[in-house]
Parts: sequence; C-alpha cells; structure tokens
Amino acid sequence: MVKAVILLSGGLDSSTVLYQAKASGCECYAISFDYQQRHRRELHAAVAIAHSAGVIDHKLVSFDLRQWGGSALTDDSIDLPRLSSMTEMSQNIPVTYVPARNTIFLSFALAYAETIGAHEVYIGVNALDYSGYPDCRPDYIQAMQEVFRLGTKQGRVGQAITIVAPLINLKKTEIIQLGNSMGVPWEQTWSCYSGDYICCGVCDSCQLRLAAFAELGIPDPLPYAQTVK
Amino acid sequence: MVKAVILLSGGLDSSTVLYQAKASGCECYAISFDYQQRHRRELHAAVAIAHSAGVIDHKLVSFDLRQWGGSALTDDSIDLPRLSSMTEMSQNIPVTYVPARNTIFLSFALAYAETIGAHEVYIGVNALDYSGYPDCRPDYIQAMQEVFRLGTKQGRVGQAITIVAPLINLKKTEIIQLGNSMGVPWEQTWSCYSGDYICCGVCDSCQLRLAAFAELGIPDPLPYAQTVK
Repeated sequence: MVKAVILLSGGLDSSTVLYQAKASGCECYAISFDYQQRHRRELHAAVAIAHSAGVIDHKLVSFDLRQWGGSALTDDSIDLPRLSSMTEMSQNIPVTYVPARNTIFLSFALAYAETIGAHEVYIGVNALDYSGYPDCRPDYIQAMQEVFRLGTKQGRVGQAITIVAPLINLKKTEIIQLGNSMGVPWEQTWSCYSGDYICCGVCDSCQLRLAAFAELGIPDPLPYAQTVK
Repeated sequence: MVKAVILLSGGLDSSTVLYQAKASGCECYAISFDYQQRHRRELHAAVAIAHSAGVIDHKLVSFDLRQWGGSALTDDSIDLPRLSSMTEMSQNIPVTYVPARNTIFLSFALAYAETIGAHEVYIGVNALDYSGYPDCRPDYIQAMQEVFRLGTKQGRVGQAITIVAPLINLKKTEIIQLGNSMGVPWEQTWSCYSGDYICCGVCDSCQLRLAAFAELGIPDPLPYAQTVK
C-alpha cells in the first residue's frame, strides 16, 4: 500500500484530493497549516474531513506569516476582494495571493513524507480557476518535483517522492462532480476567506464555490450570509 | 541598494554569509528558525550576529519539526554522532540530516523576500564539508532557483529573486579566512549540536569547526568541554 501525505486545507479542492488519494488505495497522512490566516476556521474543517476520511494521522504545523504579511489573508489592513468578476479573478494575481505559500506547504509535506517513508504528496492546486496564482501552475509543480528529487535522501537514491496534483486541469464544477462521486461531505468543508462564523458569500472563494454549485444545480450545504445571483 | 534576505543560523557559515552580503553593499534582512532543534542555543548567536552586523530587520520563524522528528537534531532518541571520522562525515548522509530543512528555510526566505521586495536570498550551504547533505549541493540550489522563478509574482514578471550561495565550493578553512577578512566576530557564533551551554567538542559540527581553526593556526574563541587532537 502506498503511503501518501495529503495537503489538507479543509476546502473543497483539498478535501476532494484526500478522498481521491483514499480511493486510489493510499494510506493517507494529512497535513494542515495554521499560518495565522484570516480564515483559520478552515482548520476545523480540515480536522473534520480528515476524521471522516479515516486518515492514519493528521499533523498540524503552526507558524506565523503575519509577521511580514503581504496578503489579504495574512494582513487585516488589506481588504478582501468582494464581488470580483470571474475575469478579474482569472487574469490578475489577486491580493489573496500569499507569497510562497505552496512552496512552504510542499516543503513541510516533503519533510513529513520523507520522515514517514511516504512515496507521494497530494496537493489540490488548480490552474484553471484563480489561475493568477503563480504557485498553482503545472510548470511550478514540475519545478518543485525537481526539488523533491534533489533535496532529499530518498530522491538521491532514485526514489523521489512524487507530487500528485489530480485537480490541476479541472474546472471547479468538475471537481465537485468528482468529489460527489466519492462522497466528499461538503457540509464539513470550508472555503470562505472572511474569517466569520458564517460564509460571507461574496469573497472570491465563496463566489467561485457558489457559482460552481449553482451551475451544477446542486445545493451547497454551507450557511451563507448572502448569495449573489 | 539591493535588498537581501540572509538565512542566519548563527553558525560559522551563515554568519560569514551575512558579513559577505553586507560587504557586497546589500541592505540586509536576516531570518532565523526555531524548529525545536536540539541546539536552539544557536538562536542566541543568530541574534547577536545580526545585531553586530547591523541588519535592518531580523525575523524569527518558529515551528515544530519534532512532531515527526527523523533527525538527531529533532529527535532526542537518536544519538548525535560523536568523533566521526572526516571520511564518515563526507561519504554518508549523517543522522543530523533534517529532512527537507533547507527547502523549508528557503521557502520562508522566499516568502519574506517577495513581501519586502528583496532581490536576493543568501544561504551558507557548502557542498564540500559534510557533502552528504543532499540539500547543500549545487544542483539542488539550481532546482530551488527555478522554484523561486516560477512560484512567485516577481519571478513571473522576469524579476526572480536570486539565490546566492557564496560558500558552496569553499573549504571550511577558506570560509574562516573569508570571515576573518571581514571581521566576523567568531566569539558570537555557535556551531555545536549538543544543546549544552558549552560546546561539546566531539559532535560532527564541533569537530569540523575545530579542525579548520587548528589547520589555520587560529584559536577558536568558543568554550569547549573537550577537544580532540
């Protein structure tokens, strides 16, 4: 059985990825990050999803990215985008971009994977929606794969840990369809950036999620403060 | 003036690198890591050296690598190597190897650098002594450079942050000579892995340091519990 480390934020994408790793027959080890993000509430979702999926272990790594900020998710003085158009979201690098976040996440996943002898690291990056994020694109993942190969003991003896990014070319609607087919409990996930107890419905993350559920004609089971038609 | 982020452990190599960045005319921003390493005492050295060098800011990032261990530096049940031969040190990957440590360090440095608009990240890796470490070799640094280029906003617009590794091909004696020429205060540095208040003199790190000072006929100003002739 292949041991796999799964980057789990508790959102729609990473939860689907966890279920996919499980469906592929992996022994799943989840890893989540408290980086003092505005929406730390997502970690409760990560814990619930990891439990539902029956992971073998779930590590939480804590560090403080607020000490330098640089993102609307780690600096409260930068406003969250609200009601952006889909074009705005896909063409620019949004202010919710957190410098080097996926590089930090993948580095810790690599450390954890090498220590427990895992062969795969799953990540829910997606290059289509929100394609402004530089660290969600295929060429970036390929560059990290080379780091996985050259920067570890396992990699140096020809047993590099593989990065698996099964959602990279899927649309949000396709991700929901995939998750549905595997029974991902959407009510336990969390996508909203606002940091409130109820989903705001207007941040980029809520909007992308709501639009995809609406397009599929599937109700999103989360509570929303408002939803835009 | 070029803004540079310097990875500073408080050891001999990274202290020399900080002084080198300063000598090159950089505005220096230091970053150090409390990863629950056995020799956390090195952080006091990092603070002292950063102060002596007159850095503009010094960030300390804390996280816990003991939660999965995997190294003699992060798991007290793995003994530190003592009195290893130089051949042993250079041919094998030592138990002091911390999985993905430089990848984690460089990821945070990248995040910090991108946020403050720095153009360079200095790291004191060295491929000659202790060459067993996979994440200290030139091909690894090159792979991380590609991540720096593709994984950031700056990199995507052709302004990738550059990794500078000025010690990569130097011997320990050459590093000390370089540091001496720039007035690195060796008495403020710390290399010992033991975690004691006094340098053990027999761990790999002490041995490499002592051998190099001895070869140069320069006294090492640090206090040692024992020194091996």
